[in-house]
Amino acid sequence: MVLGHESAGTIVQVGSSVTTLKPGDRVALEPGYPCRRCGPCLSGRYNLCPEMRFAATPPYHGTLTGFWVSPADFCYKLPDSVTLQEGALIEPLAVAVHIVRQAAVVTPGQSVVVMGAGPVGLLCAAVARAFGASTVVSVDIVESKLSFAKSFCSTHTYSSQRIPAPENASNIRALAPSLAGGADVVIDASGAEPSIQTSLHVVRPGGTYVQGGMGRDEITFPIMALCLKEVTAKGSFRYGSGDYKLAVELVASGKVDVRKLISGVVAFEEAEQAFKKVKEGEVIKILIAGPNEKKE
Amino acid sequence: MVLGHESAGTIVQVGSSVTTLKPGDRVALEPGYPCRRCGPCLSGRYNLCPEMRFAATPPYHGTLTGFWVSPADFCYKLPDSVTLQEGALIEPLAVAVHIVRQAAVVTPGQSVVVMGAGPVGLLCAAVARAFGASTVVSVDIVESKLSFAKSFCSTHTYSSQRIPAPENASNIRALAPSLAGGADVVIDASGAEPSIQTSLHVVRPGGTYVQGGMGRDEITFPIMALCLKEVTAKGSFRYGSGDYKLAVELVASGKVDVRKLISGVVAFEEAEQAFKKVKEGEVIKILIAGPNEKKE
Amino acid sequence: MVLGHESAGTIVQVGSSVTTLKPGDRVALEPGYPCRRCGPCLSGRYNLCPEMRFAATPPYHGTLTGFWVSPADFCYKLPDSVTLQEGALIEPLAVAVHIVRQAAVVTPGQSVVVMGAGPVGLLCAAVARAFGASTVVSVDIVESKLSFAKSFCSTHTYSSQRIPAPENASNIRALAPSLAGGADVVIDASGAEPSIQTSLHVVRPGGTYVQGGMGRDEITFPIMALCLKEVTAKGSFRYGSGDYKLAVELVASGKVDVRKLISGVVAFEEAEQAFKKVKEGEVIKILIAGPNEKKE
Amino acid sequence: MVLGHESAGTIVQVGSSVTTLKPGDRVALEPGYPCRRCGPCLSGRYNLCPEMRFAATPPYHGTLTGFWVSPADFCYKLPDSVTLQEGALIEPLAVAVHIVRQAAVVTPGQSVVVMGAGPVGLLCAAVARAFGASTVVSVDIVESKLSFAKSFCSTHTYSSQRIPAPENASNIRALAPSLAGGADVVIDASGAEPSIQTSLHVVRPGGTYVQGGMGRDEITFPIMALCLKEVTAKGSFRYGSGDYKLAVELVASGKVDVRKLISGVVAFEEAEQAFKKVKEGEVIKILIAGPNEKKE
Repeated sequence: MVLGHESAGTIVQVGSSVTTLKPGDRVALEPGYPCRRCGPCLSGRYNLCPEMRFAATPPYHGTLTGFWVSPADFCYKLPDSVTLQEGALIEPLAVAVHIVRQAAVVTPGQSVVVMGAGPVGLLCAAVARAFGASTVVSVDIVESKLSFAKSFCSTHTYSSQRIPAPENASNIRALAPSLAGGADVVIDASGAEPSIQTSLHVVRPGGTYVQGGMGRDEITFPIMALCLKEVTAKGSFRYGSGDYKLAVELVASGKVDVRKLISGVVAFEEAEQAFKKVKEGEVIKILIAGPNEKKE
Repeated sequence: MVLGHESAGTIVQVGSSVTTLKPGDRVALEPGYPCRRCGPCLSGRYNLCPEMRFAATPPYHGTLTGFWVSPADFCYKLPDSVTLQEGALIEPLAVAVHIVRQAAVVTPGQSVVVMGAGPVGLLCAAVARAFGASTVVSVDIVESKLSFAKSFCSTHTYSSQRIPAPENASNIRALAPSLAGGADVVIDASGAEPSIQTSLHVVRPGGTYVQGGMGRDEITFPIMALCLKEVTAKGSFRYGSGDYKLAVELVASGKVDVRKLISGVVAFEEAEQAFKKVKEGEVIKILIAGPNEKKE
Repeated sequence: MVLGHESAGTIVQVGSSVTTLKPGDRVALEPGYPCRRCGPCLSGRYNLCPEMRFAATPPYHGTLTGFWVSPADFCYKLPDSVTLQEGALIEPLAVAVHIVRQAAVVTPGQSVVVMGAGPVGLLCAAVARAFGASTVVSVDIVESKLSFAKSFCSTHTYSSQRIPAPENASNIRALAPSLAGGADVVIDASGAEPSIQTSLHVVRPGGTYVQGGMGRDEITFPIMALCLKEVTAKGSFRYGSGDYKLAVELVASGKVDVRKLISGVVAFEEAEQAFKKVKEGEVIKILIAGPNEKKE
Repeated sequence: MVLGHESAGTIVQVGSSVTTLKPGDRVALEPGYPCRRCGPCLSGRYNLCPEMRFAATPPYHGTLTGFWVSPADFCYKLPDSVTLQEGALIEPLAVAVHIVRQAAVVTPGQSVVVMGAGPVGLLCAAVARAFGASTVVSVDIVESKLSFAKSFCSTHTYSSQRIPAPENASNIRALAPSLAGGADVVIDASGAEPSIQTSLHVVRPGGTYVQGGMGRDEITFPIMALCLKEVTAKGSFRYGSGDYKLAVELVASGKVDVRKLISGVVAFEEAEQAFKKVKEGEVIKILIAGPNEKKE
């Protein structure tokens, strides 16, 4: 199966009724196409469409190929100031935008804790800042990721320890006065059981917790913390209406600098190396040049 | 410590600045008094007030006493058509109103599954019907409770089995075409681990699950069901702004007939028997007459 | 141009990929088809689609014809218990459902005032009742319409007088204790200037007013009432996601009895008489039988 | 009657049960005190309290006096980095915060048009920027105010002309591609009839319009624009839960620089001059030093 779903490219041909795009336009590609006719589609939640055809999700091939066919409204034109490399990072940024928007709504004055400082966690923290959050804490177990988070987007960082979740939560609350009563919003971008447990203990009464990271199907979960504090918990899955558009805007306006996440670019023929390096944890994101593409 | 927090009574004396009540008025008593000054209080969520003084919650005594002092705005005048006995059941009904309202909002056309057919579960199902829900399923392990639920409020019932949660969920979905894609709203009024697990599997993509029942602090929880289906999960704790008022209205209008839940009334001196019988599971609710009260 | 947009019919032929309908199925027809690709469509508000093709709205012909072509997802299968005549009234009922839903959300305990007791006003009042509203006031200048409203759906009626709007509002507030502080929700289903003015004066501080009726482009409007009472005002235009489905459900469940609105049925050849009678105000709704349809 | 409601000061004495403040603390003063017991208060909308006692609103005196008594929770401690002069401007900033929040919710990617570039209009524009709005247009008839707006907060300005409202709206839409389909949010901070009319024409279908400015009770209003575009209109009155706190935070964090609005400071004895200058339109805000206050 062909892999790939984080992609940007240049339009080479358009259908006869397409008016918004023309050959030569540079676009970010939203890689999943809904049916447009079911209940979720008609109600504005097309990411929940049961007939979604999503790149690199069997039986559908991915975008790591020379040419790709997409509906015009799932191609997002890049302004001149945004490179194709940045365009390829619109996908993980749209994931982060969707997660942050599930919190309905991060604003100035709020405190946000993001569990996990991988690409999506970092982008969630950056989007929360762009939405005006006053305090943004990145939490991880890898110190180097936290150093990067501090330089990239976070106001505070916390190195998670092998202690009970309530204690990690207590340590995070001690980081700033605005966290003393608990965080307004907690985002789990890790999928790890201890992180999710800490999330429920660090969120304030009446606060919001968003589960964005994928992990084990079942975990031990502090359900009474959710109940007694009247937490609002939201799941987040991929991206939907307006997320890609906002992601492009955040890059174009300079509010989120995705270039900092790019550790390098490899030729199409060397794609396997890219996967290997990411797996080894040495890098954040490596881009793969398209087979038809000249180096930028 | 004095017990009791589900109470109604007759006003015997009012403060000098009270204009809304007078001696002789019959009222339902909301038994917790917030500080009115903290963040949660000022933002309309007084049930989350950290300085709440709640009846029968240490160090505060409960209402099972001859006289009780309450702020005037936490006394809800009963219309002539509502008895003091019904008034005593406003408390659990307000719990149910708060839980159903957390679902924001149950309306006609919706399917609602309520896990647990104890007093609060039954009242949740009844309130969901009053909000217009088209399909209301009560789920329990005790057949007699399900029989009562069918006569009281539910359109369907399901006897939960000792099988994996996804299978119980699948059986519930098979009860009606409106449940085939999952329930719009699932309320757990049991606090039991298997019920909560079933809740997450029976809710539809994009649906809402409310945790109303109290149970163990931590349970095994199908977190990926919440994440991938973008479920909105809400905790529910006691009751807040407008809940008591609506509970009185639901009884006064005949939309919820709380009298059906009353298995009997005992004299104040025999209160211990009431607790015993409820514990044995023979009855739903037994009322205790006040020491100063003549029999109605 | 062919007129007609309130219609039901029987499927005679389906496209090769249609799985949800088959010849012989009886359906209500949603008469406007959006592009499915623009911002409003993808965000779940397809009624705001700028490329909507709506029956009997130039340059598009209407449904008063023998055969009609529709996308499958805009045909709503009628249960056996719902007649084609009722099916033809799903359209105005969906208008009312959309209006009431704009109030986000009518629930038990609320007071709702509906200005205008024409077909849409009556249906708004009936839908508000189905949503559980405790007090529903119909307001009109024609006494016979108010009598019908009382028998059809309303708890109270008010005959609007030629007096300043604040005085009409004051009279409406005097109808019931639940209206003394103003109505929770006010729906204008008339489009008439005096009714809209009264709406703003009768809504309570923090309440909601929905403009559903069409009228003059500009009117004299009590803007400071909106500002100082922090009213939420919502416009309502046609119907959108879920409205038709819920309208069918309200009829099927017996919660709204649209048959009471049907004053008669005329043959296709006599359609002109139907328009004439409605214009003369003698009747509420007259149905026109399709040219291919046998009399039911 | 004593005037004054935009004030900051130094605590000289606290009640015996006050734990959050001590003599010497510098605070911004929220100048209206609600009853804490009515429906609006308990539901988190205390600015709609019918028994509000608001400074300089008869029969209550204002804050332009040497000493002032306030409940502790309506005093907002200023961080060391915020001066008392800035503290006095928290009041109009809280008005702007409340207005912008009524839009529920301004975020990155949105376009916001603010009608009026007086103090509140300028602060609304600045708050909208702090919330991340990508395009913020200030509209006024005075060129010098627009110049200031450009330097203070706005991405675009428009000098309103004596032409029909739809034409002014059309000109504003032509300012940027993000405005072509209409603005996501329009705030009227002027109260002027032509501005309100333009607001309704410039807002996009499905967009939000907030009425923040006070003016004539009744105006000619394009009601069908509200109806057909399904605009959400919200009134805004003073400020409520969390607004003052956020205003202090916006100043402390440097996101809104209220010092730029201060044209000068006069001694308490010369207060009349301050009112005169503001009336003449020469200045934006002039502060009046308290009689007991040493010059900062």
